[in-house]
Amino acid sequence: MGYTESGGPDLHPQRWLDLPVDARVAQLRALRKHEADELFLRLSTYHQMELLLHLLPSERGAWLRLLPPDDAADLIQAAAGQKFQEDLVDLLDDIGRREVGALLAYQQDRAGGLMNPRFARVRPEMTADEAIAYLRLQASDVETIYYIYALDHDQRLLGVLSFRDLFNCPREQAVRTIMRSEYVSVFQDVDQEAVAALFADTNLLAIPVLDEDGRMKGIVTVDDIVDVVAEEASEDIQKFGGTEVLDAPYMEIGLWSMIRKRAGWLCILFVGELLTATAMARYERDIARAVVLAVFVPLIISSGGNAGSQAATLVIRAMAIGEVGLRDWFRVIRREIPTGLALGAVLAVLGATRILVWQAAANAYGEHAVKIAATIAISLIGVVLWGTFSGSLLPFILRMAGLDPASASAPFVATMVDVSGLVIYFSVAGVILRGTLL
Amino acid sequence: MGYTESGGPDLHPQRWLDLPVDARVAQLRALRKHEADELFLRLSTYHQMELLLHLLPSERGAWLRLLPPDDAADLIQAAAGQKFQEDLVDLLDDIGRREVGALLAYQQDRAGGLMNPRFARVRPEMTADEAIAYLRLQASDVETIYYIYALDHDQRLLGVLSFRDLFNCPREQAVRTIMRSEYVSVFQDVDQEAVAALFADTNLLAIPVLDEDGRMKGIVTVDDIVDVVAEEASEDIQKFGGTEVLDAPYMEIGLWSMIRKRAGWLCILFVGELLTATAMARYERDIARAVVLAVFVPLIISSGGNAGSQAATLVIRAMAIGEVGLRDWFRVIRREIPTGLALGAVLAVLGATRILVWQAAANAYGEHAVKIAATIAISLIGVVLWGTFSGSLLPFILRMAGLDPASASAPFVATMVDVSGLVIYFSVAGVILRGTLL
Repeated sequence: MGYTESGGPDLHPQRWLDLPVDARVAQLRALRKHEADELFLRLSTYHQMELLLHLLPSERGAWLRLLPPDDAADLIQAAAGQKFQEDLVDLLDDIGRREVGALLAYQQDRAGGLMNPRFARVRPEMTADEAIAYLRLQASDVETIYYIYALDHDQRLLGVLSFRDLFNCPREQAVRTIMRSEYVSVFQDVDQEAVAALFADTNLLAIPVLDEDGRMKGIVTVDDIVDVVAEEASEDIQKFGGTEVLDAPYMEIGLWSMIRKRAGWLCILFVGELLTATAMARYERDIARAVVLAVFVPLIISSGGNAGSQAATLVIRAMAIGEVGLRDWFRVIRREIPTGLALGAVLAVLGATRILVWQAAANAYGEHAVKIAATIAISLIGVVLWGTFSGSLLPFILRMAGLDPASASAPFVATMVDVSGLVIYFSVAGVILRGTLL
Repeated sequence: MGYTESGGPDLHPQRWLDLPVDARVAQLRALRKHEADELFLRLSTYHQMELLLHLLPSERGAWLRLLPPDDAADLIQAAAGQKFQEDLVDLLDDIGRREVGALLAYQQDRAGGLMNPRFARVRPEMTADEAIAYLRLQASDVETIYYIYALDHDQRLLGVLSFRDLFNCPREQAVRTIMRSEYVSVFQDVDQEAVAALFADTNLLAIPVLDEDGRMKGIVTVDDIVDVVAEEASEDIQKFGGTEVLDAPYMEIGLWSMIRKRAGWLCILFVGELLTATAMARYERDIARAVVLAVFVPLIISSGGNAGSQAATLVIRAMAIGEVGLRDWFRVIRREIPTGLALGAVLAVLGATRILVWQAAANAYGEHAVKIAATIAISLIGVVLWGTFSGSLLPFILRMAGLDPASASAPFVATMVDVSGLVIYFSVAGVILRGTLL
């Protein structure tokens, strides 16, 4: 990859994680302290928790105290359901216990659960020089200064200033006259997806988190948002593939819980798909008369499903990143109808060509080949248009019903379109082939 | 959302973007300067470019100079293919033109294309106090201090220190003795996905970008990585839905180019799906004898496709976030085979129950109902196992062939499984029903 690792090759977490957990624990104990610390800090919360679980209770405290309070709180939350969760809080020092205890009161997917309670603070009445000296005192707590927050004696946020604002003014100027008193902030109970959207909207590096009285509790920083964005994308992709969201890495999740996560949706889709058997049974007499109709059933229904998956994916993703909102449903439909027609027409040409070529080459379809080709072509236009239309509308309907639009997974859309695709196909066949094959 | 906007309600980019572009230009001109500046800075690169295109050439310079050099370079790159692209560089001031010109030499999806050339720098021989004074001089260029970089006279990177390191030591101590000379850096031509992985591995806020001679060219900061992560996830999701990656927001992309992006994959899938017609034609005589077999075709093949989509999605996402590598293929298969068997068994029970209940209630399947139920149940186990197996293996095969594993989209896997699912189904039927229905 062309970058310098700060440790030896064994420290690369990805390679290291291939080892069984006991071997990892043994290696961690064998490393020099600063190497071991660095390795531990680089691990994901899940893997930190797993290691702690396999260490002796007497060893756990040192590792836990190594973490900043928001990460320690995440780890303790990840240990939910593990017997040793309660002991973990006791292992922290006094300040840590207070900070982590406060963070644990928040849900992990809310602004309060994401925030770091350590941030650079000044008083509005300080001069620029006094503020710099005061920041120096805070240096052991605050690794990086994103922004500097001016608080009153009740911890209420009065204004925000940047490092540049503070260094770019006369030394004697008061913070009050430098700071911006209009600022973006977020309430502690706001959902992490909304916090990520706020970062995308504002391009800020950190956003202050306030409680209901306007007191500042911490900052959410953009580096935590990277994890949120990746996590939300994983969830959307997993839902999109028609499975429940996994709550652990793929390789770590137990076989039984993996089967349960997948069986639920698979059974729902299967029950929906049973309707195709009902629909097909309705057309059994048609099929008995013209078996050739059955030959094209997979082709027709899968084309509708594929077109529907495309439309649903694009709309779901555009919704997730805020490009498309509920109010846009009509604009989306207005785009998808001509798109569906055009895509259907392309497949219709391909399908009809295939039939007519096979007919010319091997008389594969007998005297009614042209009528069969017409049936397939018109059905393809119908199912692709219908698939595109319903695939793009479904995310809106789900969202309007208060459900997650990402549930409109490719398999879900395909199943929905399969039944209606059969009805379209056999109806078209009924009209075109009546009197000849049917 | 419970947060304070720093401007009036009209400044919210999402609502504002609903307006036609001419109305947006008019509103931008009517705003007070600091409001207009803030609004412009909040927009995505694409929307900034679109606005500039609709402003008078004489107005463009002021807006472009408002942007930091990496964002200005992105905007100019986004204008590729637009007639006014060349004029844009000339609108910058001298320093800006040099900086942006250097950035434009990089591809947008490489470390060099992501980086900001403005960062906090010190000399190793300075004392802590001199370094702080020197940082003060740089304050008009550097908004936020992520880390402080110690460079020699040839701009070679010697060491890295944090704000905390500098403020936490005696005032007279030399930077050389505070800085860390082991650091993580990235070569300028490294792909942005690898840079994002490096941020995930190291939890750093900024990573220095070096050229082949070890000279420091800039820093990539974690806030740019948020966009990279979201962009890569969008690409994966779009590929996963069986469409080419869109190069503009969903609502902005032209209808014709939208159709082209989707028609390609849809046609490939259709041609693959034509094999189902060939397969079905092989079994036409079986269907003519036992039309009931046709009734269950959609149910059987879609169950295989759904199981395959699930497996492929989980493996693709686990690969994308680095949880699963090529070396893990056997461990994955070893998990997926029992999973597929279990899922197939669940659907087999559901399917057989459906047939036996309908038979008991309405004699729907005649004297051979039990044999039909057995055919469906065994076929379901076969196609679900096969779908799961091939869906989980396909991303590995694509990656080994140097292709993007995310191309193993739900529709692609479903199409692949459809043909083989038919063969499995009719083979099972051939064995069980031979001598009775067939």
